[in-house]
Amino acid sequence: MDILTSVAPTQSLTASWRREGLRVGFVPTMGYLHAGHESLIRAAAAENDRVVVSIFVNPTQFGPNEDLEAYPRDWERDRGICRSLGVSLIFAPDAGEMYPGGFATKVGVRGLSEVLCGRSRPIHFDGVCLVCLKLFNVVGPDAAYFGLKDAQQYFVLARMVKDLNLNLTLRPCPIVREPDGLAMSSRNAYLSGPERKAALILSSALNKAREAAEGGEREASRLTGLVSEVVATEPLARLEYAQAVSTDDLSEVSEISGEVLVAAAVWVGKTRLIDNFILPPVGGAG
Amino acid sequence: MDILTSVAPTQSLTASWRREGLRVGFVPTMGYLHAGHESLIRAAAAENDRVVVSIFVNPTQFGPNEDLEAYPRDWERDRGICRSLGVSLIFAPDAGEMYPGGFATKVGVRGLSEVLCGRSRPIHFDGVCLVCLKLFNVVGPDAAYFGLKDAQQYFVLARMVKDLNLNLTLRPCPIVREPDGLAMSSRNAYLSGPERKAALILSSALNKAREAAEGGEREASRLTGLVSEVVATEPLARLEYAQAVSTDDLSEVSEISGEVLVAAAVWVGKTRLIDNFILPPVGGAG
Repeated sequence: MDILTSVAPTQSLTASWRREGLRVGFVPTMGYLHAGHESLIRAAAAENDRVVVSIFVNPTQFGPNEDLEAYPRDWERDRGICRSLGVSLIFAPDAGEMYPGGFATKVGVRGLSEVLCGRSRPIHFDGVCLVCLKLFNVVGPDAAYFGLKDAQQYFVLARMVKDLNLNLTLRPCPIVREPDGLAMSSRNAYLSGPERKAALILSSALNKAREAAEGGEREASRLTGLVSEVVATEPLARLEYAQAVSTDDLSEVSEISGEVLVAAAVWVGKTRLIDNFILPPVGGAG
Repeated sequence: MDILTSVAPTQSLTASWRREGLRVGFVPTMGYLHAGHESLIRAAAAENDRVVVSIFVNPTQFGPNEDLEAYPRDWERDRGICRSLGVSLIFAPDAGEMYPGGFATKVGVRGLSEVLCGRSRPIHFDGVCLVCLKLFNVVGPDAAYFGLKDAQQYFVLARMVKDLNLNLTLRPCPIVREPDGLAMSSRNAYLSGPERKAALILSSALNKAREAAEGGEREASRLTGLVSEVVATEPLARLEYAQAVSTDDLSEVSEISGEVLVAAAVWVGKTRLIDNFILPPVGGAG
């Protein structure tokens, strides 16, 4: 397993793979890998000849009052996980390599970036688009793997990839959960014991809404109202939003028709957690 | 010579060339090809195994009161020129292929896009960045060729290519001029007989400034003042700007040191013309 921290040798190495006709799968991460990341790496390994994992805590996707400095890091453990899963290359640049002096380029996706998490994190998705576009250009993957816990991130990036004619496939992968239902997230490490228990309310609330939808409820406000009601029963949790949106353009829907994303964000103490489910088109192929 | 109007077959064709180890040169144009474009195509042909020319009058780089509809077009002539110069592929999409419904992605370069021509054309360079980034992703060139008549365009794109880690080289090519000195431009076709004569004042004014610089003048305001004075002698011409900027970040300079771009825009009737020269670092390798 190679570990590279500079752009140029990474581009050379992956270019040499492409010249050999090898298929390259890519898993961009901010490190502190958990079972969710592992599932992405396994999916990439199953479909490609080489797997590249990037580990970079990207400053441009953090707002001024967010947790950039506190974001958990464990380089030794991350390296061990990558090696054990057969990763060919870790690309682990520092911020100076990614954003050298004079950096002036901005990228973003209008509309889709401004709803859901974008309301409270106005620069977040522009930062995600920028770093992913750069990483795609550095790694040159055939396919890149993203977990659906960050569903909005996936849909924003899918729009960018399509709009910019990027010659790669984005693969959305299912949310991986703790045995009790909490969606895996590096930020779960912030939770105290009582907060960890309280955090369960998010997946429980979304489950209630999913059951109602599967039971035939087609009114979006009933589903999001259910999420809101269930979260309100947990004193340590505060709902930021619960919304039902079309997966086409993330515009709010009033009725469940077509493919719909039901997503929520809650604060548990100082930790912001997100979770969601996707309803396939009714009667559709899902 | 192939002519393709869709993204997917263009990506397939150029990908097949890259798999064969062929080097691809790319000349993006808005058509109505002139000797300036021809020089770019020749440079691309000299350095690459395959040359791709795109012909696309990109709506996103025109402001609401600009000349999108009037922009001159001559498809038959353009095709003949490309064929005669050994071009392998013309990529000629329509606006619906480049910007289909739901398009939402924006790209731009801060700072460099807001000075010089950017003052009067506030969305222009974002549009240029967007279309070039898309075209680079469609064509996948090893090198792309740009004329220095549009010097700001070249420096903005060079910044974008560097910032986004695009795996290609931008080649700036010298301005090609009519025998009397007027810089070649598709927009010269707009000029009436008297306007065509008056338009000469732009290259004459810049020549005066260049001679002064070569004669030792190091004060930027003296050089731009000269441009301004000479243009003022032509009743049919109106100066929009004359500025001296660093080629690093296009920030205005007061003294000529380092590499400096001296650029000007004039209106002749309803036609806006630009021209410039670049001063190499004093005592530098040029």
